[in-house]
Amino acid sequence: MIALLKEIRHNPLLWLLVFVPVVFAAEHMKPEAHTLLFVLSVLAIVPLAALLSHATESVAAKTGDAVGGLLNATLGNLTELVIALAALRAGEYMLVKATIAGAIVTNTLFMLGASFLLGGLKHHVQEYNKAGARFQAGLLFLATVALLIPSTISQADSAGGAAMIPKLSVGLSVLLIVAYGLGMLFSLKTHREFFASAEGGEAAEAPWPMGLSLAMLGGVTVLVALVSEVFVASVQKAAETFGMTPAFVGFIVVALVGAAAEMTSAFSAARKNKLDLSVGIALGSAAQIALFVAPVLVLLSYAIGPTPMDLLFWPGAVVMMLIATITATLVTNSGRSAWFVGVLELMVYLIFAMTLYMLPPRVQ
Amino acid sequence: MIALLKEIRHNPLLWLLVFVPVVFAAEHMKPEAHTLLFVLSVLAIVPLAALLSHATESVAAKTGDAVGGLLNATLGNLTELVIALAALRAGEYMLVKATIAGAIVTNTLFMLGASFLLGGLKHHVQEYNKAGARFQAGLLFLATVALLIPSTISQADSAGGAAMIPKLSVGLSVLLIVAYGLGMLFSLKTHREFFASAEGGEAAEAPWPMGLSLAMLGGVTVLVALVSEVFVASVQKAAETFGMTPAFVGFIVVALVGAAAEMTSAFSAARKNKLDLSVGIALGSAAQIALFVAPVLVLLSYAIGPTPMDLLFWPGAVVMMLIATITATLVTNSGRSAWFVGVLELMVYLIFAMTLYMLPPRVQ
Amino acid sequence: MIALLKEIRHNPLLWLLVFVPVVFAAEHMKPEAHTLLFVLSVLAIVPLAALLSHATESVAAKTGDAVGGLLNATLGNLTELVIALAALRAGEYMLVKATIAGAIVTNTLFMLGASFLLGGLKHHVQEYNKAGARFQAGLLFLATVALLIPSTISQADSAGGAAMIPKLSVGLSVLLIVAYGLGMLFSLKTHREFFASAEGGEAAEAPWPMGLSLAMLGGVTVLVALVSEVFVASVQKAAETFGMTPAFVGFIVVALVGAAAEMTSAFSAARKNKLDLSVGIALGSAAQIALFVAPVLVLLSYAIGPTPMDLLFWPGAVVMMLIATITATLVTNSGRSAWFVGVLELMVYLIFAMTLYMLPPRVQ
Repeated sequence: MIALLKEIRHNPLLWLLVFVPVVFAAEHMKPEAHTLLFVLSVLAIVPLAALLSHATESVAAKTGDAVGGLLNATLGNLTELVIALAALRAGEYMLVKATIAGAIVTNTLFMLGASFLLGGLKHHVQEYNKAGARFQAGLLFLATVALLIPSTISQADSAGGAAMIPKLSVGLSVLLIVAYGLGMLFSLKTHREFFASAEGGEAAEAPWPMGLSLAMLGGVTVLVALVSEVFVASVQKAAETFGMTPAFVGFIVVALVGAAAEMTSAFSAARKNKLDLSVGIALGSAAQIALFVAPVLVLLSYAIGPTPMDLLFWPGAVVMMLIATITATLVTNSGRSAWFVGVLELMVYLIFAMTLYMLPPRVQ
Repeated sequence: MIALLKEIRHNPLLWLLVFVPVVFAAEHMKPEAHTLLFVLSVLAIVPLAALLSHATESVAAKTGDAVGGLLNATLGNLTELVIALAALRAGEYMLVKATIAGAIVTNTLFMLGASFLLGGLKHHVQEYNKAGARFQAGLLFLATVALLIPSTISQADSAGGAAMIPKLSVGLSVLLIVAYGLGMLFSLKTHREFFASAEGGEAAEAPWPMGLSLAMLGGVTVLVALVSEVFVASVQKAAETFGMTPAFVGFIVVALVGAAAEMTSAFSAARKNKLDLSVGIALGSAAQIALFVAPVLVLLSYAIGPTPMDLLFWPGAVVMMLIATITATLVTNSGRSAWFVGVLELMVYLIFAMTLYMLPPRVQ
Repeated sequence: MIALLKEIRHNPLLWLLVFVPVVFAAEHMKPEAHTLLFVLSVLAIVPLAALLSHATESVAAKTGDAVGGLLNATLGNLTELVIALAALRAGEYMLVKATIAGAIVTNTLFMLGASFLLGGLKHHVQEYNKAGARFQAGLLFLATVALLIPSTISQADSAGGAAMIPKLSVGLSVLLIVAYGLGMLFSLKTHREFFASAEGGEAAEAPWPMGLSLAMLGGVTVLVALVSEVFVASVQKAAETFGMTPAFVGFIVVALVGAAAEMTSAFSAARKNKLDLSVGIALGSAAQIALFVAPVLVLLSYAIGPTPMDLLFWPGAVVMMLIATITATLVTNSGRSAWFVGVLELMVYLIFAMTLYMLPPRVQ
């Protein structure tokens, strides 16, 4: 408990925890103040995500490499998963899909690009482990192909093709989860020496004791789930108030909120010239969402959603995921980075953000 | 003749030759038993393809490098060519095109992926000649662009664009054959030293004497042609019985049957750590079908088909060829391989196979 | 002035300057002879473009690296800019866009491919600076993404999406110009040592004195502008006479005319084994048109065009620009070249040229 308080004092991000009780109080007193609730829930999710991320890493550090890697690989995007589950239960499939696509695009372009830019402003040229970047980019490429196919089929034939989409989505989801599992086996077990340098630099924060970690993991997940309910319920109305399209909210706002904790780690690693770590967090997180979170949500929708969810994305979202994957593949090809590489990535991200911001609502 | 008998005793694959007389007998006695004829003709084509492949290589070995390389480069996919010619004469253009697209996708993803996986299960990391892979991937890329253009044009404008497709297809076919010829000149003559390592490992099987080779080349081609007639006549009906879509049959079944002989060579080379040879067979075969077999079929359709055939493919097939080419380009970029690279390729193949299997018939 | 006369005597290309007065005379006497005026204006633009290019380089050589690089980077495609401005004033937006897309495709595929081929016919293998090629290919990729988005959006939703295209085009134009400016800062200032080798070989032609250079820059620009008026007014009618589609004229003819001067430099550098210079001219010129000329034209259209111009391109043009960028990225990936690499690029260009030539007029 002292460890926790010490960390809260040390880390300004955690001061935002004060908004967790505030959001519940506000929801109780003013359930119709959507804009206020939206802002408060965003402010509350950010520090909770940071705690969740630290708890996962602490458990992982104690349980040894194999189990720890597995834990990190499955719980690393717990925040995104919990937010998406809240949207899934509410039947907001458009928001779920926008969150998935947005998380992939945001991690691949914004988190990676900003890491390159921030690192590059301090260091003239930075080198990192190509093998790790290539592995994650390969996983992302596979997921993009899997998400591209339903959209291609349904465009080619709107009547007959549409009927097969739900069955195909389940099949693709199983394939993606299997591929993700085999990828873990490869990177954590059979060929772990190729990904060595990224592991080395990770003990940045002091791990918590096991009891605290597990308690936090359980307790904070519940808090994130509760705040996510408020967030999901308020986000669409709030977006209208701010003049934002639903596509923009899902793609950009939710994705940035969900990834806030990981971003602080990735950016600080880049400034310390540990670019391996930044690339690993950014691309690893994107791959995890694409190959694990998204298919799990499809399968879970059969259990908890009002109707089954499929993997059919809006064509524009597929194009953006495809471009994000190709961009990541191209920029990580050389294993070297300078500030302008970050600018290139951020520019692609800005093009997407600008387009989504201007998009008329019903197109998404 | 003794050499032939010795090889038959030695090679279990050739025991399937017994099905060659069986298929003719069955066709004579039960011409309406489509499913039986389909299964028998598949079982008969596989060993014939192996013999054809061995005969081609034997002639190539005797005639010296330049002529031999040329022979291999033109007759290496004789089985696919003969099957496609049978379908062409029967006016089954959908099957011809599915066979072409399927052969490209199967060679690029399944044959290459399984080689990487089988080799990787035995050897921790395998290296191979990047220059050769890059050359073949470049040829494949060119062919994919050529096949992409008619489909793009006809989508952009269904009325005016469609009228130019036949003329454009002939022009593109001539361009592809010229590019293939110049590629041969480059890899066999002016810059052959870049592709050296792949050549070195090829004398795996003992070559036959010249007379036997030529006799086999002629005789077996006739047999493949005759069995292909039965195959083409029975395949669609049999597919319905098995509940397979025509797209699945052309893309997956025919492609696997046609490439069975080459696959055994590629897989055994991968196990022996001669990955250069596996990559050369897989990508070389795909490039040959895309730049030589497909355009030759278009030009021949003016002579032997009921109506001219064009290069306009179903958009889904174009997307799959494009993804297959990009996948091959990305995975062969580093010149190194481990088992998971094979898994990635096979997963992309499985995504395609699953989609084609579920596809409602009329979409293809 | 003596320097100018000496250069004219030395350089056969400049003998074509005789057509400059001829075209004005012809336009005065036979304003309806479109085909004649078209041919004469093409013959007049080619030597003027060469003079303009030499004048820009001379000023750049005198003003030192930073200012000089900037001058080259902004005025290097002055010919294309002036031709496009003439078309813009005439409201010929189809021609403007075809010119932009055509210049990107022609520089990336034809100029680069022919450089590789011509260099490769003389030298067995040529090496060049990968970093420079990668930088320019990255800029081109960014521009392609920016041009791809409006077309994707407007296809996904023809009613609501179309309304946002003008506003989006302005936003994208500003982003592209900012990216181009930061790219200049990167390559000319903060990381110029990476692009060193390309700079070294550039002092091929003797620079003119400052006074002459500035006078030429002003005078020749005016002449190009005047001849361009004749060219734009005659090109469509002349194209019909020659049986060429408007898409073919914009994409191929105008692009080749506008880039004639740069091509002679790029080809002669390739023959002299200075491939860095050829790649720099070809890809640099394409990047400049995509990230500077095209967005400037969009912004200028608000001032001088009859109606605002957007960045919405015909889907076929977007596909061609995308393929051209991917081709350039793939072929420059290794930093090595042989003659067949040039053949591959030229074949892709031929596929495009053939398709555009056969395209029925209203599809473009």
